[in-house]
Amino acid sequence: MKVLFLGDVFAKPGRQAVKHFVPKLIGRHGIDLVIANAENSSGGNGVTPDTADELLAAEVNLLTGGNHSWSKREILPYMERPGCRLLRPANYPKGTPGQGSAVVETPDGRKLGVVNLEGRVFMRNLDDPFVVVKEEIAKLRAAGAKAILVDMHCEATSEKNAMGHFLDGEVAAVLGTHTHIQTADARVLPGGTAYITDVGMCGPWDSVIGVKKELVVQRFLTQRPVSFEPGKRDVWLQGAIVDLDEVTGKARSIERVQEKLPE
Amino acid sequence: MKVLFLGDVFAKPGRQAVKHFVPKLIGRHGIDLVIANAENSSGGNGVTPDTADELLAAEVNLLTGGNHSWSKREILPYMERPGCRLLRPANYPKGTPGQGSAVVETPDGRKLGVVNLEGRVFMRNLDDPFVVVKEEIAKLRAAGAKAILVDMHCEATSEKNAMGHFLDGEVAAVLGTHTHIQTADARVLPGGTAYITDVGMCGPWDSVIGVKKELVVQRFLTQRPVSFEPGKRDVWLQGAIVDLDEVTGKARSIERVQEKLPE
Amino acid sequence: MKVLFLGDVFAKPGRQAVKHFVPKLIGRHGIDLVIANAENSSGGNGVTPDTADELLAAEVNLLTGGNHSWSKREILPYMERPGCRLLRPANYPKGTPGQGSAVVETPDGRKLGVVNLEGRVFMRNLDDPFVVVKEEIAKLRAAGAKAILVDMHCEATSEKNAMGHFLDGEVAAVLGTHTHIQTADARVLPGGTAYITDVGMCGPWDSVIGVKKELVVQRFLTQRPVSFEPGKRDVWLQGAIVDLDEVTGKARSIERVQEKLPE
Amino acid sequence: MKVLFLGDVFAKPGRQAVKHFVPKLIGRHGIDLVIANAENSSGGNGVTPDTADELLAAEVNLLTGGNHSWSKREILPYMERPGCRLLRPANYPKGTPGQGSAVVETPDGRKLGVVNLEGRVFMRNLDDPFVVVKEEIAKLRAAGAKAILVDMHCEATSEKNAMGHFLDGEVAAVLGTHTHIQTADARVLPGGTAYITDVGMCGPWDSVIGVKKELVVQRFLTQRPVSFEPGKRDVWLQGAIVDLDEVTGKARSIERVQEKLPE
Ligand SMILES: [Fe+2]
Ligand SMILES: [Fe+2]
Ligand SMILES: [Fe+2]
Ligand SMILES: [Fe+2]
Ligand SMILES: [Fe+2]
Ligand SMILES: [Fe+2]
Ligand SMILES: [Fe+2]
Ligand SMILES: [Fe+2]
Repeated sequence: MKVLFLGDVFAKPGRQAVKHFVPKLIGRHGIDLVIANAENSSGGNGVTPDTADELLAAEVNLLTGGNHSWSKREILPYMERPGCRLLRPANYPKGTPGQGSAVVETPDGRKLGVVNLEGRVFMRNLDDPFVVVKEEIAKLRAAGAKAILVDMHCEATSEKNAMGHFLDGEVAAVLGTHTHIQTADARVLPGGTAYITDVGMCGPWDSVIGVKKELVVQRFLTQRPVSFEPGKRDVWLQGAIVDLDEVTGKARSIERVQEKLPE
Repeated sequence: MKVLFLGDVFAKPGRQAVKHFVPKLIGRHGIDLVIANAENSSGGNGVTPDTADELLAAEVNLLTGGNHSWSKREILPYMERPGCRLLRPANYPKGTPGQGSAVVETPDGRKLGVVNLEGRVFMRNLDDPFVVVKEEIAKLRAAGAKAILVDMHCEATSEKNAMGHFLDGEVAAVLGTHTHIQTADARVLPGGTAYITDVGMCGPWDSVIGVKKELVVQRFLTQRPVSFEPGKRDVWLQGAIVDLDEVTGKARSIERVQEKLPE
Repeated sequence: MKVLFLGDVFAKPGRQAVKHFVPKLIGRHGIDLVIANAENSSGGNGVTPDTADELLAAEVNLLTGGNHSWSKREILPYMERPGCRLLRPANYPKGTPGQGSAVVETPDGRKLGVVNLEGRVFMRNLDDPFVVVKEEIAKLRAAGAKAILVDMHCEATSEKNAMGHFLDGEVAAVLGTHTHIQTADARVLPGGTAYITDVGMCGPWDSVIGVKKELVVQRFLTQRPVSFEPGKRDVWLQGAIVDLDEVTGKARSIERVQEKLPE
Repeated sequence: MKVLFLGDVFAKPGRQAVKHFVPKLIGRHGIDLVIANAENSSGGNGVTPDTADELLAAEVNLLTGGNHSWSKREILPYMERPGCRLLRPANYPKGTPGQGSAVVETPDGRKLGVVNLEGRVFMRNLDDPFVVVKEEIAKLRAAGAKAILVDMHCEATSEKNAMGHFLDGEVAAVLGTHTHIQTADARVLPGGTAYITDVGMCGPWDSVIGVKKELVVQRFLTQRPVSFEPGKRDVWLQGAIVDLDEVTGKARSIERVQEKLPE
């Protein structure tokens, strides 16, 4: 099974990149399933029912989230709808709206389990992702998914790499999101788990991690609050393609994706 | 001028990778100057006179540092020696031992100014790197360096990218270190500054950012202190080669380097 | 000279406590000057021209600020007016609107220098308060102030206590703000500096540090964003009275103040 | 039932204060049970079998811990002994050595449940103290304890105050430790829970939160590692006396304790 996993889709430029490239990549690589992190899809901060639906209409099968999942209030009831295809990190407190994992199926019925996690180092005080991921894996296996992909939405390279090794051999892929910068360490770990510290952002690269660069520089220079707006130019789609074996639940290969939107 | 810049050299495996590859890369690419970040060169934590000298003997022209520069006490007097070729971040408080910038010269007398900075987001409470870098640039220009390379030792992708855009057109290169994971965003920014968020580590990749992976996983699982040891296997040299024009002070190109040490 | 120093004035309840008690305390204790931290005076978050003027009309002679000084944009031009009696922390970057220190005078011409600082541990990446305070002290001495009072707006008890000892004998008082909880460690340090880690908040105590308690508990339980509103009941004025010698610049005594607003 | 609760016992001076004052306070106030936080009892950093036993021999009935509980390795097997009277925070991961709660009994058989928690804001990535405390309360109730005392070892005033209100009416006392500075907010909350944000340290006050003051100031000034040693002079015992009703499980009163060791 070939899975295209896309990093944080940032504002309108990110959504445009998804709409432009996903159908092309599906055709070119024989992609079976597409997953994208949507936490920045609404104006660079949060996700709304509209931006979620827009991405799902663009041949994306499942959306994940992160620390910005909660920025737009109107997404909470959307997350609670039966069959909702937008996840939020699984390690929020019990009772949090929405789901932290799901099984997606290819048209011919092959299953992939997906877990969305959020790291804790330099981030929020959440439940232990190393504990929660084991519970979610068990749930997904019980639901018939032999192959599992983990979106590790996380700041620190240490926490992401630790999760990769922790799950090596147990899941098909541990793929990082959140830093918005793709890393050059994609590989299949010794146990058979595809790993990359961060797949990078889908959005404007002439920016500071998506945001208009002058505004972020101003915030660093003044240390005072500055209102952020998305950048606009040099838009890229970034992610990774994982080829995994849905019977053994292991990865055959992982390949980074970087595609520039024509201007 | 072609400059090979190497990321955090981690423990003995990292030093071996430097000794093995630097002479080869100099020959293969026509490298004029080699710079390496040495903050983890001693056992993965800190730098000693011995590990600094070992790297400088391996055709490295200048060493930089970071938050781990201070872990081994015996390095302080070394940093104070006249002509010392080991920098520490420039934005430590006034009176800090050592230097935060230096001019290095090719055998035929072409000059490169180098500034070492440390970020503040998720790190120490240091002086403002955005202010200090301007002062250091002025000093280096006064010392005759038209081209300047900045080692931005820093955790957050936002702070590193902001520094890149802040200095775009003013220096030849802003190259990140500290996260130990190479990023896939090397490019020349619109103003002519070569940029990469992190050049990655020289060290054992079968690890969590250099450290034996089981130990780091154990620390995440227990949240208690765990003594760290360096990893050993799958050793890589990582860095970037910047081709810069020492007359205009701008970059022509930047290319990532990843070389695996034969086992 | 007797100085009444009041901690973070929180929203309308805090302003009411100031208006109710300040005239009484001036009379009861023979207060010469009143200083209050205004960073939470507007709705619990920030300070506006109106809330600043309201406090200054209530016989407060000078206002200080903190990390929340910047929450309301309309305060920036107010801070720039000549003779403005609202300070902001001195250790923001050069070019920050407003002043970080000032000299206030009693009606009979006795002078007190006031410095406003913000800590860095667990807070923003500001200039070094230990360096900046020395520069501000020199300025205030040059302006004729022999006695100096420092508002150390700061989270960590270690950083506040370190500042107290660092300035012991050099200033008349180092008084902490920001945690909103008064500490029971008011004393004159060996060198003659009055010290307290935090003078506490002027505001509703039936709250979590000023905010409606149910809302803060909800944020801890959910780890999701929650809009905050000020608490309302159990309103207290909190601060300290420092008796200082304006000739020697040392403190004679410090006394905690806690006064409950009649309901 | 009258309970004397003592804050972080810091190094030898702290232990001396405990030995000097505890018998006196038991007599003077008719104390039924004594509890002390021991996380700094060994040299200011950690707790050893020797320092734990020394405190337990000084009429202390139960010891609690915090983020420093793990600094000395030899304490781990001690924590695992049956009947061990040294707790560690309850919200460490499952499988952590030792216990996070216990029932202590007066000589005449009246029971008090004690829970030790550690906050997460600005601290470690632990399990949710708001969830764990409910589980521990249920365990203690099942073991026959109607009155429960919580040691909330925690940095942020917001998290401590939120815990106080969260448990108001459900436990007899929520008493803070960790900042080493006593707060002046001891009171019985509306629901009947005795509360104080921090009871303060037992140790040398001529220090920065226990540590030799010159060393801490040096660390702030240099931002480099500095080896810490305990302060020596101006030694105080600090804590609180809670009078609680072991039948209703509510508090009648709380009173701060500050006693200076004769020099
Ligand atoms: Fe994101
Ligand atoms: Fe994120
Ligand atoms: Fe490093
Ligand atoms: Fe580093
Ligand atoms: Fe405040
Ligand atoms: Fe504040
Ligand atoms: Fe402590
Ligand atoms: Fe502690």
